[in-house]
Amino acid sequence: MALLNDNYLKLKAGYLFPEISRRVKAFCDANPEAAKKLIRCGIGDVTEPLPPAVIAALHKAVDEMAARETFKGYGPEQGYDWLRRAIAQNDFRDKGIEIADDEIFVSDGSKCDCGAILDIFGAKNKIAISDPVYPVYVDTNVMAGHTGAANAAGAYAKLVYLPCKPGNNFIPVPPKKHVDVIYLCSPNNPTGAAATREQLAAWVSYALENKSVILFDAAYEAYITEPGIPHSIFEIPGARECAIEFRSFSKNGGFTGVRCAFTVVPKALNAFAKSGESRPLHQLWHRRTTTKFNSVSYTVQRGAEAVYSPEGKVQVAALIKHYLGNAEVLRAGAKQAGLKVFGGVNAPYIWVRTPQGVTSWQAFDKILHDANVVITPGSGFGSKGEGYFRISAFNSRANAEEVARRLQTLKW
Amino acid sequence: MALLNDNYLKLKAGYLFPEISRRVKAFCDANPEAAKKLIRCGIGDVTEPLPPAVIAALHKAVDEMAARETFKGYGPEQGYDWLRRAIAQNDFRDKGIEIADDEIFVSDGSKCDCGAILDIFGAKNKIAISDPVYPVYVDTNVMAGHTGAANAAGAYAKLVYLPCKPGNNFIPVPPKKHVDVIYLCSPNNPTGAAATREQLAAWVSYALENKSVILFDAAYEAYITEPGIPHSIFEIPGARECAIEFRSFSKNGGFTGVRCAFTVVPKALNAFAKSGESRPLHQLWHRRTTTKFNSVSYTVQRGAEAVYSPEGKVQVAALIKHYLGNAEVLRAGAKQAGLKVFGGVNAPYIWVRTPQGVTSWQAFDKILHDANVVITPGSGFGSKGEGYFRISAFNSRANAEEVARRLQTLKW
Repeated sequence: MALLNDNYLKLKAGYLFPEISRRVKAFCDANPEAAKKLIRCGIGDVTEPLPPAVIAALHKAVDEMAARETFKGYGPEQGYDWLRRAIAQNDFRDKGIEIADDEIFVSDGSKCDCGAILDIFGAKNKIAISDPVYPVYVDTNVMAGHTGAANAAGAYAKLVYLPCKPGNNFIPVPPKKHVDVIYLCSPNNPTGAAATREQLAAWVSYALENKSVILFDAAYEAYITEPGIPHSIFEIPGARECAIEFRSFSKNGGFTGVRCAFTVVPKALNAFAKSGESRPLHQLWHRRTTTKFNSVSYTVQRGAEAVYSPEGKVQVAALIKHYLGNAEVLRAGAKQAGLKVFGGVNAPYIWVRTPQGVTSWQAFDKILHDANVVITPGSGFGSKGEGYFRISAFNSRANAEEVARRLQTLKW
Repeated sequence: MALLNDNYLKLKAGYLFPEISRRVKAFCDANPEAAKKLIRCGIGDVTEPLPPAVIAALHKAVDEMAARETFKGYGPEQGYDWLRRAIAQNDFRDKGIEIADDEIFVSDGSKCDCGAILDIFGAKNKIAISDPVYPVYVDTNVMAGHTGAANAAGAYAKLVYLPCKPGNNFIPVPPKKHVDVIYLCSPNNPTGAAATREQLAAWVSYALENKSVILFDAAYEAYITEPGIPHSIFEIPGARECAIEFRSFSKNGGFTGVRCAFTVVPKALNAFAKSGESRPLHQLWHRRTTTKFNSVSYTVQRGAEAVYSPEGKVQVAALIKHYLGNAEVLRAGAKQAGLKVFGGVNAPYIWVRTPQGVTSWQAFDKILHDANVVITPGSGFGSKGEGYFRISAFNSRANAEEVARRLQTLKW
């Protein structure tokens, strides 16, 4: 009798975004005229075309696949050396951060890696997760059996939730109790907050003291505009001994539909076997990668490499500037509409307080029905997200401006 | 104190192919002249360029990514509807097999899916695996904690090994004892054997009776030449209630470096919760896919779609014919050299008995040193592979002919 993974039965009904899709579809079906005016600021998906340098690299790589002499079959499971080198050099060593080429593992997405990383950890770790948070961190831990059942508010037993509120500038502080694995995301999805050097140093210090591992999601680092905000956890001394970092080409190069990311696993990072013996996690992640993965399309890796070319860098900077310009327009629009606004300065997300007495989903429905704009309800990211909503700045400038205008028209 | 996954410590030293690479590199470094003549028939990697229809589709899709109006961001996690439809229609419904579009899950590789599928199964299943076998099935079960330690011969406790020998034409027969999850691969990697309808029907009957699930790897189905050999487990009545099938574009379209595959999970397939309640595995795999995956590059999916175009079909057929032609040349060459040969008729692999008293690795070293040809030692696929080696037919015709010639020159 084949047994299923019972942990899946603990999962709450749906991942957030399918539920949003369902409500949007129902609204559009019932209101075909309004549907034509719909502007989507929900899911954090880029809207602008790929940089020309990436397009050129993709075409060139496709041509290589058309001739026997230049055709590429299986590549190294961890990614081609030239891409790992370009990443380690440009994103780390050129910025004074010590990361070796073979500490870079190329993958098909940070979402995938955030889930897959749990494969190399034991079942008995105490897991700490911010609230609100990117739902994938929670759901993959539920699937892996690291939690108990969910309560009525959707919080899972055994997980340690770290509240993110205006009082801590939406960056969690290390808990009093001991935890083994800690998820941090900065700049943060969904709140748009970015951790300062002092805040990250406090976490590294906690992790070293507790022999914990920090899973640091830096998918939005390219959006940091304020000087002094770390772009990588590895800017903090000691982080090589306690952190793994996830990076992505989705939000800088616009690769959400192209699929390329990478994970940095320093060789100095250890975890413990049941015997008490410590082992480098790099060995385990390397073994997992070679056994359960076959890397990313050759053409896509050449596209990712082009992000680091001189033209690619200029073009990516222009894309980021575009989206951050939208963020500024949206911030100003929401403020002018009398709403309390956070984020949007070091991140492509605006985190907005709902008017008094309005829940996140009520705000979602109102904004959908009255302004024909799709946002993301904050409660979808965790109980501490209740009373907020997220506006994504990934859009055309015209749409961002139109959304800012429509926010003014809402009667709450 | 962060704990690692102790199951990884049970894994034997290396995945087979890295060990082969190590020996080949050592030989080439020591024998630079011989290295120039080296022909690789080890890893099953295609050598011919992508079909022109695929190249055209890839270029077109790259161009779409260059303009805002046609740019694609995140797609559906399970793959685009048009690709799922093309697959279900061409590979199944056109052949009289009932598979719905939404039973197709597009992925970045069968290797990845064969590992990932374990996520949705419970920890207490009894797992049956052929011997010899594709090492990924074994290693991913070790990682998932489904086995005990390995013995001196490399066999893991708790796994049920199903011997594949000349006596059963290298197709395992259902065991007397009960097992919950069964891996079958036909046409088989490494032996090149293909299961008959009767053999598969016996397995489906066993699985239905025992409420087991068959994980059917059909990555090489395009190489079947003999009429009557099933291309899909779903040709067998009842398989929709007991099987999952893995397919790939790697070995038909030549996508080993492009990365696209798919997994078929019928909605009629159930497994059991600890409570004894049965649930469709389709629901769980759907949830896993949406939570831990973000599909495959849009451009790659368009390339895969082109495999089903009229021109694509003709071009893929020509590729298969080329590799099977190599297989015939290699079969004849090995036979003429006095070796006992299996496979190569419905598969791109030749499975060769080593001469009396010669182990698989001894044969590997001799063929490398004396003929400058890389093959794969059978014992790398399991203890019952000892005394065999695999020759891959993925090569140019000239190389296949040269390998056939060199086999004649060996003095055993």
